[in-house]
Amino acid sequence: MQDLTQYSTETVQATEDFTLHIGDIEAAAERLSGNIVATPLIENDEINRTLSARILIKPEMLQTTGSFKFRGAYNRVSQLSPEQRKGGIVAWSSGNHALAISAVAARHGVKATILMPSDAPRTKIAGAERCGGTVRLYDRLTEVREEIGADIARATGAVIVPPYDDPHVIAGQGTVGLELVHQARDKGLELDLALLSCSGGGLVAGAATAIHALSPATRVYCVEPAGFDDTARSLASGKPERNAPGARSLCDALQVPTPGQLTLPINRRLLAGGVAVTDAEVRHAMRVVYDTLKLVAEPGGVAPLAALLAGKLDVAGKTVAVVLSGGNVDHDTFSACIAG
Amino acid sequence: MQDLTQYSTETVQATEDFTLHIGDIEAAAERLSGNIVATPLIENDEINRTLSARILIKPEMLQTTGSFKFRGAYNRVSQLSPEQRKGGIVAWSSGNHALAISAVAARHGVKATILMPSDAPRTKIAGAERCGGTVRLYDRLTEVREEIGADIARATGAVIVPPYDDPHVIAGQGTVGLELVHQARDKGLELDLALLSCSGGGLVAGAATAIHALSPATRVYCVEPAGFDDTARSLASGKPERNAPGARSLCDALQVPTPGQLTLPINRRLLAGGVAVTDAEVRHAMRVVYDTLKLVAEPGGVAPLAALLAGKLDVAGKTVAVVLSGGNVDHDTFSACIAG
Repeated sequence: MQDLTQYSTETVQATEDFTLHIGDIEAAAERLSGNIVATPLIENDEINRTLSARILIKPEMLQTTGSFKFRGAYNRVSQLSPEQRKGGIVAWSSGNHALAISAVAARHGVKATILMPSDAPRTKIAGAERCGGTVRLYDRLTEVREEIGADIARATGAVIVPPYDDPHVIAGQGTVGLELVHQARDKGLELDLALLSCSGGGLVAGAATAIHALSPATRVYCVEPAGFDDTARSLASGKPERNAPGARSLCDALQVPTPGQLTLPINRRLLAGGVAVTDAEVRHAMRVVYDTLKLVAEPGGVAPLAALLAGKLDVAGKTVAVVLSGGNVDHDTFSACIAG
Repeated sequence: MQDLTQYSTETVQATEDFTLHIGDIEAAAERLSGNIVATPLIENDEINRTLSARILIKPEMLQTTGSFKFRGAYNRVSQLSPEQRKGGIVAWSSGNHALAISAVAARHGVKATILMPSDAPRTKIAGAERCGGTVRLYDRLTEVREEIGADIARATGAVIVPPYDDPHVIAGQGTVGLELVHQARDKGLELDLALLSCSGGGLVAGAATAIHALSPATRVYCVEPAGFDDTARSLASGKPERNAPGARSLCDALQVPTPGQLTLPINRRLLAGGVAVTDAEVRHAMRVVYDTLKLVAEPGGVAPLAALLAGKLDVAGKTVAVVLSGGNVDHDTFSACIAG
C-alpha cells in the first residue's frame, strides 16, 4: 500500500502519474466494514429478459445517506488526526457528498461546513442540515465553490474534503468495485462489463482500480448525462475536455465542468470508454427501477441502467454489473419521472 | 421434520392442533437458497434516532416479484410432482401471491390461473399477466374466490395453491423469520421484538415459528390495517373473529374477512399480540421509507413500521426487527402517499 498522504489537496495539480493501488482500496474496505450498509447485488428476471443478459445491480441508494458517497467520506474523515478534527471540515457538493460528509462528521463529532449549489434538490439541502452540517448555498453559474471552500479553510483551519479529487475519497468509493467482483463471484459469475455513473469521476476511478486488479478482463465504462460527458470526451481526445457552459440535465448529481485532476489519469488508464444518456432515457430507467426493483433512484443514480436500456452498449449474453449510485430525489421530481 | 403432505388443501378444516416445526422452515430455506433474493437487514441512523431504538429493517420489496410471497409460492410449486405439474396451478390473491405464483410457475414450466379482485392495483394485475399467468378477475364483494378456484381445479385437474392456508406456503414465508434471527446475530444483536404485516397470517405464522424456535425470548407482533384487525381481535378473544363487511383500507394486500384456519392456531400459540394502523399512519410511513431508505413500500408492506412510528408499541432502547413485506403499488397511489 502506498502512502497516500503525499497527495494532499494542495498538490493535486501534480498528478499526471497519479495512481491508486488495490491495497489502498482494501485498507478502505477494512475501515468501512461494520460502518456502512453492505449493499446486496440484486438480479431481476424481467430486466435480464429485457436486455438478454445477466444484469447484477448494486443499489447504493440503500447506503447510509442514500448514496455511495458515504464510503469515500467515511474513509477520509475516519483518518483525520485529533488535531485536524478540532478545526472541522469544509466540503462542497451538489448534494450527495454533502449528506455523506454531514453524517460522517456527526458520527465522528466533527463540525462540517458544506457548500451546495442554490439549485440543489431540497431533499439534499434539508438532509445535510438534518445530519448536523452547516449549509452555505452558492450560485453554480457565477461562483467558484473551490475558492469559497479554500477561503473558509484558511479562515477557520478546517480540513477540505473534496468530493472526488482526494486519494482517500477515491479509495473509499473504490470499495464498490471490490464488492462487485466478490459478490459476483459468490454467485459463480465473472463480470464481462461494469457500468458506473460519472461526475468528477471518483466512483468510477476507484471502482475501476479494484475491478482491474481483481478481474482484469472486465471492461469498465463510465456513464454521464448528455451535455456533461466531459470524461467520455476526455478519454476519446486524450486531454481534459470542458463542458459547454449553460448545459442542462435532470442529473443534478452529475454536473461538473471538467474531469477531476486525480481521477482522469486513472480513468484514462483503466476505462474501456464512456457513454452519455438523455433526460428521457434517465426518466425511463427511473420508472423501470420503480416498477421492477421497488427502489428509489435519483436521476444521476440510474444513468448506467439508462444506458443499457437505451441500447448504448451491446450486452447480449454478457454478465454486467450496474451500480445505482444514489436515491436522493425530491418527491415531485420522482413522481413526475415515474408517471411516464 | 413432519410430513406436511397430510395437510392437503382439502383437510384444512381439521386444524385446531396444526403446528409447523423449525425443520419444515429450514427445509424450505434449502429449497429457496439460490432461487430467491437474499434480502439484507438494513439499519438507518435517522429511523433509529426517531424511535430511540435499533430498528433492523428487512426489505422484502427487493424479493423476486416485489414481495415475500415468492418464498411460499416457490416452496410449494417446487415440490409438485411431474404429474401434478401437468394439470397446472390455480391460485387466488389480492395481488402479491398472484405475481409470485405467476413467476414461480413460469420458472417451473407450469400453467397458472390466477383469480384476482377486480379492484386490485393495476400494477399487480399487469405484472401477473406479464409473468405468464392467466388472470381471471372477480368481484371481491359478491363472489367467493375459494369457490371459483375449487370449480377450476375440479374442471382442469389444477392444483390449488392457497395464499396462506397451506403448510408449504407458510413454511416458505417462515424463512423470513429464520433470516431475521441469523442476520441480527451476524450483527451481534438479539431481537427483543419482531413486527410483521398480517393478512391471512401466513407470513407472521411462519416467521413466528422460526423466531420462537431460534430466539424464544423475542416477542412477535402482527400488524393489520384498522378495520381488518381480525387476527388481533381473534388473539384477544380466543376465537376466530370476522371483519365488518364494507371496511375500507389503503392496504390492498391486507384485506381478508377472517384469519386462516392453519395460521390462527399457530399465531394464537406464538404471537405476543397484534396492533392496527390507520391509512394516515401508513402514508406517513411510506414517506419515511421513501425519504430515508430510498425504497418503494406498498401500503400493506409498510404497516409494521407505521405502527412503530405511530408509537403503538414501546420500543425505546430495544432491538426490533421490522419486515417491509412488499412494494407493488401503482404510480399514482405512491406519488399521492409520498406527497404528504
